[in-house]
Amino acid sequence: MVAEHRAIGRLLQRREVENTGAYLERLSDRSVARSMRQLNRRDLVEVFDLLAPVRREEVFRLVQDSVRIELLKGLPTERSETLFASLDPDDRAWICHRVPDSLSETLLAALDRGARELTLLLMQYGPRSTGRVMSPHVLAVRAAQSVDTALELVRSQGEQVETVYMLPVVGDAGVVLGVVSLRRLMVSDPRTAVGDLMTAPAVVMRTDQDQEDAALSFRDARLIAAPVVDADGRLAGVLTVDDAMRILEEANAEDAARGSGSARLRRSYPATSVLDLVRSRVGWLLVLIVAATLTVNVLDYFEETLAQVVVLALFVPLLIGTGGNVGAQSATTVVRAMAVGDVGPGDFVRVLLREVGTGLLLGLILAAVGFFPATFFADRSIAIVVCLSLIAICVLASGVGSTTPMIARRIGIDPAVVSAPFISTIVDATGLVVYFLVARAVLGLG
Amino acid sequence: MVAEHRAIGRLLQRREVENTGAYLERLSDRSVARSMRQLNRRDLVEVFDLLAPVRREEVFRLVQDSVRIELLKGLPTERSETLFASLDPDDRAWICHRVPDSLSETLLAALDRGARELTLLLMQYGPRSTGRVMSPHVLAVRAAQSVDTALELVRSQGEQVETVYMLPVVGDAGVVLGVVSLRRLMVSDPRTAVGDLMTAPAVVMRTDQDQEDAALSFRDARLIAAPVVDADGRLAGVLTVDDAMRILEEANAEDAARGSGSARLRRSYPATSVLDLVRSRVGWLLVLIVAATLTVNVLDYFEETLAQVVVLALFVPLLIGTGGNVGAQSATTVVRAMAVGDVGPGDFVRVLLREVGTGLLLGLILAAVGFFPATFFADRSIAIVVCLSLIAICVLASGVGSTTPMIARRIGIDPAVVSAPFISTIVDATGLVVYFLVARAVLGLG
Repeated sequence: MVAEHRAIGRLLQRREVENTGAYLERLSDRSVARSMRQLNRRDLVEVFDLLAPVRREEVFRLVQDSVRIELLKGLPTERSETLFASLDPDDRAWICHRVPDSLSETLLAALDRGARELTLLLMQYGPRSTGRVMSPHVLAVRAAQSVDTALELVRSQGEQVETVYMLPVVGDAGVVLGVVSLRRLMVSDPRTAVGDLMTAPAVVMRTDQDQEDAALSFRDARLIAAPVVDADGRLAGVLTVDDAMRILEEANAEDAARGSGSARLRRSYPATSVLDLVRSRVGWLLVLIVAATLTVNVLDYFEETLAQVVVLALFVPLLIGTGGNVGAQSATTVVRAMAVGDVGPGDFVRVLLREVGTGLLLGLILAAVGFFPATFFADRSIAIVVCLSLIAICVLASGVGSTTPMIARRIGIDPAVVSAPFISTIVDATGLVVYFLVARAVLGLG
Repeated sequence: MVAEHRAIGRLLQRREVENTGAYLERLSDRSVARSMRQLNRRDLVEVFDLLAPVRREEVFRLVQDSVRIELLKGLPTERSETLFASLDPDDRAWICHRVPDSLSETLLAALDRGARELTLLLMQYGPRSTGRVMSPHVLAVRAAQSVDTALELVRSQGEQVETVYMLPVVGDAGVVLGVVSLRRLMVSDPRTAVGDLMTAPAVVMRTDQDQEDAALSFRDARLIAAPVVDADGRLAGVLTVDDAMRILEEANAEDAARGSGSARLRRSYPATSVLDLVRSRVGWLLVLIVAATLTVNVLDYFEETLAQVVVLALFVPLLIGTGGNVGAQSATTVVRAMAVGDVGPGDFVRVLLREVGTGLLLGLILAAVGFFPATFFADRSIAIVVCLSLIAICVLASGVGSTTPMIARRIGIDPAVVSAPFISTIVDATGLVVYFLVARAVLGLG
């Protein structure tokens, strides 16, 4: 897979236009779409131009969202408009919020009226709402209809709707009463009323619900589609499993990036320039380095102690490194437990106690293992200082690591943002204070 | 959601058996299943006993795999056997590999012959293979059959198979020729031959293929089901989207845990004891602390320099912290790019150059921003040492951070294992060497 984009890149670099075209012809639509992930914008447009015209729409349908956006920006306006019009309304809405206003206005203006209205309708929902990603093309049946009638509806309208495998059953004013699967309809007596076969929907999503919440409950219930309703319980659309997977994938990519203190890349790694890589990372690094000046302050304060017993400096990286690791472990566990709903705001004290207990045990184990080796580098009293500090730092780190994400959520910050690197920095500074206070006490310094 | 397990826990603690039973009756099967995630084994068995007997099988079907295992271990043998028999064969195989041999033998022996053979068949596939998680209950059609005949098959056998929404089309000896969706069948003329409607499968999985690979290609292709074939291309089963989501979720949980140097928890966080939390974390901490003694060695080696210029110690946590952060950013980006197939073994040099360039730019920015503040704590020459070291450490950290995961994969180690904490430890030690060498050179020390 990786090889294909390299072959394309090489051919383009050598300006072997004909060979590139011939090479593309041998690849399936899916392979072309996949290799386009890794090309930069100029190569992207060039490859797209070299594709046989009949293939373009399908390849455009198969490429990643970010590649679509690059193509829409790079291609001549008229062609962008045609491609844009070929997309589903939810994909169009998605794109409109991610391209410059001038481009989205041009693209929307070129749509026919019905398509434009549908796109604008979806765009009204909040940027992270379920309404934004659902499909409004939903086929509903009524409880009083027979199975036969419902199947006839699927036959006649099946091609225009997002899915036919889960059908919402609606009552007056479009209120969702239940759902029925196509499988259930197929295996039942054609004369049965749909109302007798329907079940309560395992999950009902609301248009204003957070996308990630919706996707998570979707996954837990192992669904392939679920109805989305408005504030009055009326059917507004349908969310399908591929949308849910896309949402979870985006959320994961974002969490992974945030967990290491960088912004998510918009394009694939090979298609991102070094300047964009720098841009995605420099913000957090600056915040963290400013926070890290706290450690310089702490050490400055204890400089005299350090001058008296230089050997104390030897263990600084080991102690703060361990504190950072313990803190990251706690934070990761708790962020994850919150994400899957196993831990809520009411569990604050319980989580803190568990983590402090865990930190204490970990500290005792590490101190017991580390005491003897520490005596190689310093005398017994220094080893005692290091081991006592290690225990205190482990307790501190697991306490801070576990509670910071919970506090972050309570004050409305994404817990993933304040994870590992942020916690390390707090634990570094406080851990050093502990270390030097212990040292002063044990060594009897001023 | 979180509140329900707490209510149940409280009621059980007060030994209010009747109230617990009444409370459970008011909850839906799904809510009961969900709250069971958070209970410990004793409470789990008790809650399960308090459920109305007719609900037990459905609740058992809805609970998490790890909860099922706890229940099978905790319930009387005879009841475990009945519950085990009620599961799908792929779920049974999954469980058999995760419980002690004695229990899996008992459970398998109690199955009827057909069910046992099917379970044993699935258990033959490798532990991370697609064969292990696919369902063998697949409905196939033949190219020569008419749409009408195919729909009749769905009607008569639809309830016994894993899915009816994607039907593999097979030729002689069961070789997969293509797939056809139920939707396509429904909207087509009943007299058409299935062969005229089928398309090449977007993804064909092999029984011996890695589960995570299969699930990823599944997600990229936005499928709800795909055929799984054996080495000869013959239909062996079907993988559905809920299995793919479960695989990706497990892989994510594992990567998140590994990224912070701990093992994945088998049960939910609230159901995990402090001792198990310690167990999941202590191994990596010990490895990391042993590795961190390298920093003690380095500082020991430069102790004389440190004694001459104590103020150098002030910047040690800031420098190694920044190195760790830059390394973690590079590692996370590259691990992710490898996971989605954007970066392969052939990209080693290209990735290294990009990351070194990124590190250099980041280092220059941080040094430029940091120079003036550094002069508050030390004189100008020390500030020069700190800033030069910062640049070198950023280059070093992004180089190490980006290449270590690639090297790990090449020698067959999961890249997620060697991410952030591991890289920090390497960068800490080498960063300190750089710092003191720069200091000696700039300050003209011995």
